[in-house]
Amino acid sequence: MTRIINKPKDTVSQVLNGVAYIHQDILQRIPKTGILLRKKLTPDRVAIISGGGSGHEPAHFGYIGENMLDASVSGPIFIPPTAEEVFEAIQKTDQGKGVLLVIKNFEADINNFLQAEKQAKEAGHNVSHVIVNDDCSVETGSFEKRRRGVAGTVFVHKILGAAASEGKSLDELVSIGEKVINSMNSLGVALSSGTSLTGETSNFTLEKDMISFGIGIHGEEGYRSEPFHSSEHLANELLNKLLVQYDDYINKRFAILINGLGTTTIMEQYVFSNDVKRLLELEGVTVVYAKTGNYMTSTNMAGISLTLLEITEDNWLDYLKKPTNAFAW
Amino acid sequence: MTRIINKPKDTVSQVLNGVAYIHQDILQRIPKTGILLRKKLTPDRVAIISGGGSGHEPAHFGYIGENMLDASVSGPIFIPPTAEEVFEAIQKTDQGKGVLLVIKNFEADINNFLQAEKQAKEAGHNVSHVIVNDDCSVETGSFEKRRRGVAGTVFVHKILGAAASEGKSLDELVSIGEKVINSMNSLGVALSSGTSLTGETSNFTLEKDMISFGIGIHGEEGYRSEPFHSSEHLANELLNKLLVQYDDYINKRFAILINGLGTTTIMEQYVFSNDVKRLLELEGVTVVYAKTGNYMTSTNMAGISLTLLEITEDNWLDYLKKPTNAFAW
Repeated sequence: MTRIINKPKDTVSQVLNGVAYIHQDILQRIPKTGILLRKKLTPDRVAIISGGGSGHEPAHFGYIGENMLDASVSGPIFIPPTAEEVFEAIQKTDQGKGVLLVIKNFEADINNFLQAEKQAKEAGHNVSHVIVNDDCSVETGSFEKRRRGVAGTVFVHKILGAAASEGKSLDELVSIGEKVINSMNSLGVALSSGTSLTGETSNFTLEKDMISFGIGIHGEEGYRSEPFHSSEHLANELLNKLLVQYDDYINKRFAILINGLGTTTIMEQYVFSNDVKRLLELEGVTVVYAKTGNYMTSTNMAGISLTLLEITEDNWLDYLKKPTNAFAW
Repeated sequence: MTRIINKPKDTVSQVLNGVAYIHQDILQRIPKTGILLRKKLTPDRVAIISGGGSGHEPAHFGYIGENMLDASVSGPIFIPPTAEEVFEAIQKTDQGKGVLLVIKNFEADINNFLQAEKQAKEAGHNVSHVIVNDDCSVETGSFEKRRRGVAGTVFVHKILGAAASEGKSLDELVSIGEKVINSMNSLGVALSSGTSLTGETSNFTLEKDMISFGIGIHGEEGYRSEPFHSSEHLANELLNKLLVQYDDYINKRFAILINGLGTTTIMEQYVFSNDVKRLLELEGVTVVYAKTGNYMTSTNMAGISLTLLEITEDNWLDYLKKPTNAFAW
């Protein structure tokens, strides 16, 4: 597959420059780093930073803005940024109220972000973190839950970002974040395996007309492949697996996120959204907030993920609805 | 290619239902039609309607909202809506100040929209239209300009929508619209031919690593195919062809729109944006407004288009910057 790039090794840096150019009213790049920094940091607010490997665009730079992130830190494709870069982002964003790191639950991400947190604390910054683990897919053999951090991370960005703007302290934000994360479940399917940037290698093998359940956002294969029947059938399978994570889900309120993994068309995303809607109505489940779009992708992968967040506190809904100028929300 | 749909013939209707569900705070569907209608019409404002065939999502329903459209009318894939549906949209949106139709320059679209305009005038509505023809590609043999309506249409939606909210009359809007359209040029390239909805048939043949210049948004083949070299080379070719449309472009101000045609990744879009930026800076061209994203797509096509709009009136820039809740802007 021909890709609109230059030298592959320059791609991430050129993406960051392109983002800094197009969204120059919101953010700027710290030269020679993976850091995109909000231009107008809010004084007296806990700063919020997220990041990870590239290949998940518009995550995370698309969430920099009012009531969301103060900085994103991008590593190479599917490789987290270094601790040094995260540390630099902490230094650049700390407004004296401390800094919260939103980390996706992958070992390499956690290692680098926590090392940066340690370094920053030694340098006198007040830093803490939450680890997002919304993925409720399972290991193929053991059926153990994988609990990786996937698309639901975007809900965490929004809720914590808006809560921070309201003046919550670092400790309060950690507590809200952990509650949100514990109330959230996501599951994704792939219709194509995804490939390397230039399409030369596929991440895994997926036969024609098969879908893989429980894929990750780095091209990780799912726990089961089965023939694709229809959007409605798929919506039903995903909803069943997600709703079972909640006791007494009929009496609960949910926010939902329908996330395109990259090459899945907008038409498909809304056909699927319509099926999710009808099935949730049939089940009598209450949805108080819903979003559909490409929020966290996996390079060159076709597929979709569904996230349910149980709204256990009224202000979470307010935080989701607070306006933002982040370009990808 | 497996697609997340149900029966192919139900797709467009299910897309519209999905959009109406997810964006229920902004819009609603008129049942059994291709019409999505803004929920809170602005009284005392000229209403603005756009539409066309499906397969260009998020166009046009993604542009319904404050300072943009009051309704979109979607036909089947690549087939414009009927005159009856456009007429119904006129009836539903007219707030007593008249209705403006924004039509893309394709014969079938013009026929149906103008028939609706005629019908509506006979029924007592004050209706007028503008025809967007920003495409500056040429016919293969004759080199005659094709002047189809492509991604620049989105700039027309925004400028006219914001101008209407400011209280401009129908005649004034037509005049602004025509000036904007005359100041705008777009050119698109495909890296894949695009396919039918389910991928069974390709729109045209494109060899591996070749790109087709001057493609349309309905899978129309371009006027020339050549090997792909790099994003920078592509940006250079497109800019050269677009800038030459303007005399003395060094002393002009431009808004630019970089539009992904569907399956082109966000990474590629920003790499290309960065190349466009660097080349424009080298040329000394002044860019006062820039956007990158999937604004007007062509089903299952990989590719990109570039639009230049010369800003000849200061208030066009104000109109572009006016906030909107349209979800795809």
